[in-house]
Amino acid sequence: MTDRKITKPRPISGFPEWLPEVRRVEQQWMDHIRRVFESYGYASIETPAVEELDIIGAKGADVDKEIYVLERLHKEDGDKEARLALHFDQTVPLARYVAQHFNDLVFPFKRYQMQKVWRGERPQAGRFREFYQCDIDVINVDALPLHFDAEMPAVMWEILSSLPGMENEKIQIRVSNRKILMGVLSEFSIPDISQAIGMIDKFEKNGAEWVFKELKIAYGDYLTDYNITEIVNILKNGPLAINNPHNEIVEEGLCDLTFVMDQLKHLPEGSVVADLSIVRGLDYYTGTVYETVFLDDPGYGSICSGGRYDDLAGNYINKHLPGVGISIGLSRLFDRLRQQNKLPIGRMTPTDVLVVLPSEERRPLAQQRAHMLRQSGLNVEVFHSDAKLKRQLAYAERKGIPFVWFPPFEDDKPDEVKNMTTGMQGEADAKTWKPDA
Amino acid sequence: MTDRKITKPRPISGFPEWLPEVRRVEQQWMDHIRRVFESYGYASIETPAVEELDIIGAKGADVDKEIYVLERLHKEDGDKEARLALHFDQTVPLARYVAQHFNDLVFPFKRYQMQKVWRGERPQAGRFREFYQCDIDVINVDALPLHFDAEMPAVMWEILSSLPGMENEKIQIRVSNRKILMGVLSEFSIPDISQAIGMIDKFEKNGAEWVFKELKIAYGDYLTDYNITEIVNILKNGPLAINNPHNEIVEEGLCDLTFVMDQLKHLPEGSVVADLSIVRGLDYYTGTVYETVFLDDPGYGSICSGGRYDDLAGNYINKHLPGVGISIGLSRLFDRLRQQNKLPIGRMTPTDVLVVLPSEERRPLAQQRAHMLRQSGLNVEVFHSDAKLKRQLAYAERKGIPFVWFPPFEDDKPDEVKNMTTGMQGEADAKTWKPDA
Repeated sequence: MTDRKITKPRPISGFPEWLPEVRRVEQQWMDHIRRVFESYGYASIETPAVEELDIIGAKGADVDKEIYVLERLHKEDGDKEARLALHFDQTVPLARYVAQHFNDLVFPFKRYQMQKVWRGERPQAGRFREFYQCDIDVINVDALPLHFDAEMPAVMWEILSSLPGMENEKIQIRVSNRKILMGVLSEFSIPDISQAIGMIDKFEKNGAEWVFKELKIAYGDYLTDYNITEIVNILKNGPLAINNPHNEIVEEGLCDLTFVMDQLKHLPEGSVVADLSIVRGLDYYTGTVYETVFLDDPGYGSICSGGRYDDLAGNYINKHLPGVGISIGLSRLFDRLRQQNKLPIGRMTPTDVLVVLPSEERRPLAQQRAHMLRQSGLNVEVFHSDAKLKRQLAYAERKGIPFVWFPPFEDDKPDEVKNMTTGMQGEADAKTWKPDA
Repeated sequence: MTDRKITKPRPISGFPEWLPEVRRVEQQWMDHIRRVFESYGYASIETPAVEELDIIGAKGADVDKEIYVLERLHKEDGDKEARLALHFDQTVPLARYVAQHFNDLVFPFKRYQMQKVWRGERPQAGRFREFYQCDIDVINVDALPLHFDAEMPAVMWEILSSLPGMENEKIQIRVSNRKILMGVLSEFSIPDISQAIGMIDKFEKNGAEWVFKELKIAYGDYLTDYNITEIVNILKNGPLAINNPHNEIVEEGLCDLTFVMDQLKHLPEGSVVADLSIVRGLDYYTGTVYETVFLDDPGYGSICSGGRYDDLAGNYINKHLPGVGISIGLSRLFDRLRQQNKLPIGRMTPTDVLVVLPSEERRPLAQQRAHMLRQSGLNVEVFHSDAKLKRQLAYAERKGIPFVWFPPFEDDKPDEVKNMTTGMQGEADAKTWKPDA
């Protein structure tokens, strides 16, 4: 080994990787999320890691720079394949999927997707370039009933409030309807509404005064101070601050939001609230929008967001396909709790029972005991060598294996099992023994 | 919608994507595989989709052309980051992972990994460029007991013989030990043994005569016809064809193989057999090797392969880390059964019960019934509109939802449930009802 060049590998910035005991909790999270998604009838789909660059790029210039494109290392000359790129979200792939498989799907199409997505950002602390996203969306043809807009936060509240380690976090899902602000703004015929939306999106972060000032600088020719005050008051105080109904769009937005909130009354007070300052930046939403924050750290940003879009797959198919969806940025949330030592990190193996190897001759006996215990649904391994008992127990202890099984060291002796947590040890029958008996 | 350019998306060659009802079976497969892996004490890890190109490329020139490298679409000038590439297997990442986290792992380290891998091949029918691989490996420091070599095919036999849809397939796991042939070949001091291994690897495909001829052409100066006949006879007939013990390496290989086969006696006859023609091409294996074939279609190639390697992470860490591993090429196997219509493809949703919406006014009642049924662990959705009953039932039928729940359409009436398979309908209580009652 002395003539080798040893290069200790380093982590790649932005690509998280967990030790087995942390990965175990991540699996519990994903199992939990999947269980709740399915309990509401969402079906799993997976799309490839890549899409054609033309499809991914279609969303607009602002995401271009975050895209990873693929290149074959030894590309042959004359390759005429479309360029492929890693997906940066699961919404663009969903749109493509629904259009491509339209005739094989039954609508409303309720799907969930839990996959990694990639953002080709510059490496910087705390920014993930690869992370899991867990999305649900409902897509329908022509019209999509509004009560799905209420189902989204209900599902997510159920998940977020019961993820292992999240039980004591104070989170809040905030709901708004874009039509309200868009309607108000449309009254004033200001140019470039999206710029105004961008400013309003920073309300939580920069405060009312900042928004007032920015709107005044940008739109002083179109908005009076009275107008701007009204807008800022809407962000602060909600619908009551709307001075007059303005127009049908505003009315519609208010009506939709009221309907959605009415459907969520059964949730604990403060879990889901209406908040007109939620606009979701420059996204493609057209109605309901969601964000979710830690109440004691709102500056951390949204951990679960989404909204309603009018026409998901309009570039691919001549159908009107409205949808509504919401997404957990799983890896970022998970890593936050990990860094705060809030995850219930336990053993580093799924093994429930370690079967001691009394001697090489008794290996068949040990294997047979392992087999019997597996029949009861337990995860079991046999220690790999007939090392001293102390070493075998130390292995169980280091890996956090909760039970150690002792096959008889001599004939005509009984089996025994030791609870590694309590230290209790007693006779047991591998055919019938259960951990909690 | 008329002024839009509609571009119907096409599938990307080599990147499989399933409809929800097929994906459901894929999930069952993955759940099943995970359950068996864990029942033997293998712990899940996941590594990023990418590694540094230097690490991935280290394996040798023959895989270079199959590698996808990543490029940020809008790379800033002066970027000095290491080039990243998608992993093409899970063994290279495992080696890097073990070296990187060496001090945090407990050995023997038993891990499983079920992730997508990518091969940047030219697009061609039947070749996957993205597919799931399901691997188990055991790594130890300094020495790894041989009985792990027997655990690999035992775990895989348990999985492959009971995957949904695989129950009637006649498969066979073939085991050999590379030391045997390497030892025999080393006697003849021929140059470039790996070339000879490449020829021998084609024994199953091209037959004994072909191998004889190729060896004679390549090594006529080193091997007599008698020597070549012996080699070919070993491939055909196994250890009995070895004319003399040759050397210690051959002896060791025979002894190891006998030990492994002895440990597998409990499996059904013919499920795992010794076959000295298995060499695993140009791979890095040093001892035990595995391949798995369909007995009625051996030309399809191996569906589950692996072997023992001497020193996995030697480039990264100054430790001797032998390991043994085996891998299912999941997507390819799954797609074969899909194309042969052998998968138990059923409903296109996880929903067990569709709750009928009697009328908009009764939505709270329908929601409450759905909630009660979910409490019993069922997957439930409420129909999205108060459409005619016939339409609501048709939705359940089309999605394959097995039960339809009728909340009372008027006060003081009982709930009813309909079994969509049998057509039977009767009164039921949402609090206590179970599908099989």
